[in-house]
Amino acid sequence: MAKDLHTIFGINGCVAVLQSRRYKITDVLVQSGSPAERDGKITHALGYHGGHIKFLSAAHFKSNFSKWRTQGIIVRFTGKIESELPSFLNKSKNIGLLALDRIEDPQNFGQIIRTAECAGIDGLIIPQRDSCGVTDTVMQVSQGSFTKVPIYKVKNLHQTVTNLKKEEFWVIAMENGVKAKEWHKVDYTGKVLIIVGSEGRGIKKLVLDHSDFLATIPMQGITNSLNVSAAVSAVLFERLRQLSS
Amino acid sequence: MAKDLHTIFGINGCVAVLQSRRYKITDVLVQSGSPAERDGKITHALGYHGGHIKFLSAAHFKSNFSKWRTQGIIVRFTGKIESELPSFLNKSKNIGLLALDRIEDPQNFGQIIRTAECAGIDGLIIPQRDSCGVTDTVMQVSQGSFTKVPIYKVKNLHQTVTNLKKEEFWVIAMENGVKAKEWHKVDYTGKVLIIVGSEGRGIKKLVLDHSDFLATIPMQGITNSLNVSAAVSAVLFERLRQLSS
Repeated sequence: MAKDLHTIFGINGCVAVLQSRRYKITDVLVQSGSPAERDGKITHALGYHGGHIKFLSAAHFKSNFSKWRTQGIIVRFTGKIESELPSFLNKSKNIGLLALDRIEDPQNFGQIIRTAECAGIDGLIIPQRDSCGVTDTVMQVSQGSFTKVPIYKVKNLHQTVTNLKKEEFWVIAMENGVKAKEWHKVDYTGKVLIIVGSEGRGIKKLVLDHSDFLATIPMQGITNSLNVSAAVSAVLFERLRQLSS
Repeated sequence: MAKDLHTIFGINGCVAVLQSRRYKITDVLVQSGSPAERDGKITHALGYHGGHIKFLSAAHFKSNFSKWRTQGIIVRFTGKIESELPSFLNKSKNIGLLALDRIEDPQNFGQIIRTAECAGIDGLIIPQRDSCGVTDTVMQVSQGSFTKVPIYKVKNLHQTVTNLKKEEFWVIAMENGVKAKEWHKVDYTGKVLIIVGSEGRGIKKLVLDHSDFLATIPMQGITNSLNVSAAVSAVLFERLRQLSS
């Protein structure tokens, strides 16, 4: 299988890929009589890709794809999902970047992409090593939002942090600690890089050492285990609140 | 299988159940040499339940439970997870209740329980019909937080809304609409009932009609599909921000 061949299924994800100009569509498989076949968004998106569509009988389709919740559509495509981090030096408005350090769970990663897109984040940054890549599962969970928000892959997260500081970003690490401020007492206006780590391992020390602020969400309950994508949601919408105030 | 016999696996969930006084433990199955066997929290929690523990060889354990991410521990227990909504009439401090209308996805429901517990919500309210119950999957996803936050099952959500208004609750429905205010412009102090609906079907009209305010999270991106548990996180932590200000 080609390295950059991806598979996505489900109506939202497939519509997003079919509408994007960034990928080359290789196959569109539709189950006859399925919700996808009747869906207006799919019909519209398929208009550009007529030559690739194959209609399969329900029996044939299900014999191949029964283990996934496809809603009756599978799209295969090639293309690079991640790109290189550009310079933000000459941009002066509010820019919000979100870096994920060592997030390994594809469910969390996919949900975070989706939340980031809804919260107007300008780009996600993931390190090349130690983190979950944008796998088919991640794309699936993201409901196609990976086509709408840039995902930048960097060699070395602490080097990226250093570079972004030179480009006048404030760096905010989500991490407990004696110096951490409550998440809503941090200023997210202007150019900010927000960094979150994995639930188990947190953020690498070298990255933390380069951060300007630590922000924390104090837990009110007993279990103390806020899911990382829930924490991201709280912080990104607090940023939006501040930007709209 | 007895109606109220539940199964939970994984270290966090099992510790929560073992430490709670609300359930009767029937079986504790531990895989020899597993992470669970070496885990200090598990060892401590097991202290109270010595008579129920069975150690199984890795081969035997895996032959039964290989499809789950057990971390080497399974606990079976009986007991009611949901309870009846009490009266809050004579309480005057900040009380936050969260009602879920027609949330059918167990992943979302479990994540919402977990977020609600971390955000200091005083109780979740679910209607008897049309919603996902607290199934084993929900308990699993909640990472044991279902033992820490009360889950109230009600016959009729709009009747509950009417009753809570008589008990001086303000009712805030998370729903788009011309009258909806941005989520952070709503006052969450005092006694509030926050209602969220399913991603597909929203909140029932009769329930909406009884709400005092509509709150909305405007989407910044193109996909417009914030996951319901991410939306809940944004709102519950905005409530906490207001309470701490």
